[in-house]
Amino acid sequence: MTRHRASPALDPVAWAHVNTAAIAQNLAWLRSRLHGAVAEPAHPPRLWAVVKADAYGHGLAHVLQALHDADGICVGDLHEAHTARHHGWRGPVLVLSVWGVRPNDLCDPALGELHVVVDDDATLHLLEALPPGRPAPCAWLRHAGCLHSLGFADAEYARAHERLHACAQAGVLAGVGHLLHYASAEDPEALADERAAFLAATAGLPGPRCTGNSAALCGSPHTVAGDDWARCGLALYGASALPGVTGPELGLQPAMSLHARLVAVQTVRAGEPVGYGGSYRAPHDTRIGVAGVGYGHGIPRNLWQRGMALVGRPCRRVPLAGRVTMDCLTIDLGPHATEGAGDIVTLWGHGADSACLPVEHAAAACDTIAADLLTGLTARMPLMAS
Amino acid sequence: MTRHRASPALDPVAWAHVNTAAIAQNLAWLRSRLHGAVAEPAHPPRLWAVVKADAYGHGLAHVLQALHDADGICVGDLHEAHTARHHGWRGPVLVLSVWGVRPNDLCDPALGELHVVVDDDATLHLLEALPPGRPAPCAWLRHAGCLHSLGFADAEYARAHERLHACAQAGVLAGVGHLLHYASAEDPEALADERAAFLAATAGLPGPRCTGNSAALCGSPHTVAGDDWARCGLALYGASALPGVTGPELGLQPAMSLHARLVAVQTVRAGEPVGYGGSYRAPHDTRIGVAGVGYGHGIPRNLWQRGMALVGRPCRRVPLAGRVTMDCLTIDLGPHATEGAGDIVTLWGHGADSACLPVEHAAAACDTIAADLLTGLTARMPLMAS
Repeated sequence: MTRHRASPALDPVAWAHVNTAAIAQNLAWLRSRLHGAVAEPAHPPRLWAVVKADAYGHGLAHVLQALHDADGICVGDLHEAHTARHHGWRGPVLVLSVWGVRPNDLCDPALGELHVVVDDDATLHLLEALPPGRPAPCAWLRHAGCLHSLGFADAEYARAHERLHACAQAGVLAGVGHLLHYASAEDPEALADERAAFLAATAGLPGPRCTGNSAALCGSPHTVAGDDWARCGLALYGASALPGVTGPELGLQPAMSLHARLVAVQTVRAGEPVGYGGSYRAPHDTRIGVAGVGYGHGIPRNLWQRGMALVGRPCRRVPLAGRVTMDCLTIDLGPHATEGAGDIVTLWGHGADSACLPVEHAAAACDTIAADLLTGLTARMPLMAS
Repeated sequence: MTRHRASPALDPVAWAHVNTAAIAQNLAWLRSRLHGAVAEPAHPPRLWAVVKADAYGHGLAHVLQALHDADGICVGDLHEAHTARHHGWRGPVLVLSVWGVRPNDLCDPALGELHVVVDDDATLHLLEALPPGRPAPCAWLRHAGCLHSLGFADAEYARAHERLHACAQAGVLAGVGHLLHYASAEDPEALADERAAFLAATAGLPGPRCTGNSAALCGSPHTVAGDDWARCGLALYGASALPGVTGPELGLQPAMSLHARLVAVQTVRAGEPVGYGGSYRAPHDTRIGVAGVGYGHGIPRNLWQRGMALVGRPCRRVPLAGRVTMDCLTIDLGPHATEGAGDIVTLWGHGADSACLPVEHAAAACDTIAADLLTGLTARMPLMAS
């Protein structure tokens, strides 16, 4: 069944704005970073733009419009692949999981140029059962690396590759590549070790290699520039996968801004409690703004303890004040605030006056990562793109 | 724009199952609790069934089927009111916020018997601008109480009531009631104090009163049984709003169970790292299961540190092991596990053999409350009802 979505007919009280131009700029930034790092400038890695989880919560249809320069897109499952085709994407599609898929599902011509990650024996069997004479997908064999969750460890890897290679020779696969997910991509030394182990395990095996993700592209571009392909996810949306640095500090453009309107502003006296359980006590007489967005929209419930909001013109940063509720959160606008109901506050992304509250700061305020906030918005939160 | 939803065509790898019979039973349980507490058994409070936030994430269309015995439903905004009517709800509807609504929006005959919470001057103006001769809504004036976020404080309350009363006499309102949200409903003493202040502020004013929520109905039924109406939200869905006690311990039936399939199971040696950053080290040789659900579906990212899953027959509790990723989470199934890809794990609600992992336990494992988990699921998580 379909859950209802916030109606565009009524003026929304909260919404996520997606700047698609920022996504195109981030893709170009990532490409130029690889160009600068690669030994042979004619052959930098090609880029899979990762659009799983509804394009990291930005709306697949919006984001595809910004990906004309991507060499392919990477989706989570076959359903997302179909959705991308439905929205007009014509380039290659890499599917990360084909769990539960039958051979005929992979033979649908509507899927176009398809690449499939091979995690396990079931996927090997699936590909071996593909009928010849249909559009042949490319297989990407996943090395288990240090994650120890999905993929083949060294001992089984060569044997799995042999089986896929036989499929390619029989014409049911268009090719076989090698794929790694780093366990610690944000740590250049750990990444180099993981990469070396992967290269050793795949040494002498034909086929392209793909290891780099956003953290590797931003933190270790020289290391992964020798690959044939790389995957860019979080960085595409303007956020940093490296600790202690934000997307804007790297040169990326945040693509999503999270806005809500104030539905009420109240004067609260010094010492008076605000919110459930009296969780905030105003340290001075102040103006408390109530924004119409809460954990039922996907805002982390613990954002209030250290989270900030952008408000006003000129734009200023003000603290959240009191527990986030299902539908609302409260903000200490300060004693001299002139804001009233209808004014807009920003919880991450761009506010007025080009001010920016990086989503990494909001994530840090609730002990999580940017991708969690971006992908965690619920169906109640409308997406607006420009 | 509409975000895509998981397709029912492919077997879903993760889903939330909603037991609508449990919701009907919980409503009956709440009603009998009030019957037992009320001084005059002929006049227990009537019950608003709270279905905001897509029925606390359970799917409004499913939940309405279980609410034949509710005296009315309570929604977040006018859009949810229209959705409820679209799904066939014919009883009274209480709308918690009419922010941004125009007088004509309230005059739509499709809205049926409408009750509107009055928070602020803007809503007073809205109701005063209603044209006569149209279906007249009931107003519920909200006392600010101890939340200090929405509603009228003592000094303004009587004046606001006077204005609404004039509207009722002019025929543009069908009636005027008094509404309170407790700040500390889980604390019987604090609740009694808040209630006493509310009764003092509304003393002598005509109209019905509504203060009780799930925490009050479960923890202080005698205190709120004298009201004309009460609102039941979380308890309707089988979860407890009281600290240290679960819905099943109170006698409620959890309505939602959160299931995912294992997409892979790997053997991991003692000391080997699992997951991003090597966040889990297997204390012994074990079997690590990968379930196809992650924070991109709305599972709290910090669930892994103390969270458990139900798995197998006979059903056993096993710990999460390693960071939750956007699409997957890993579980230490134990060295003797026989589970494989395709087997089902349960993160909250009912597993096999009638085993139950209360959502309150999952919430406590990630330092939040049950309502946060229930309403926080994203559009990627299909809902299945029975």
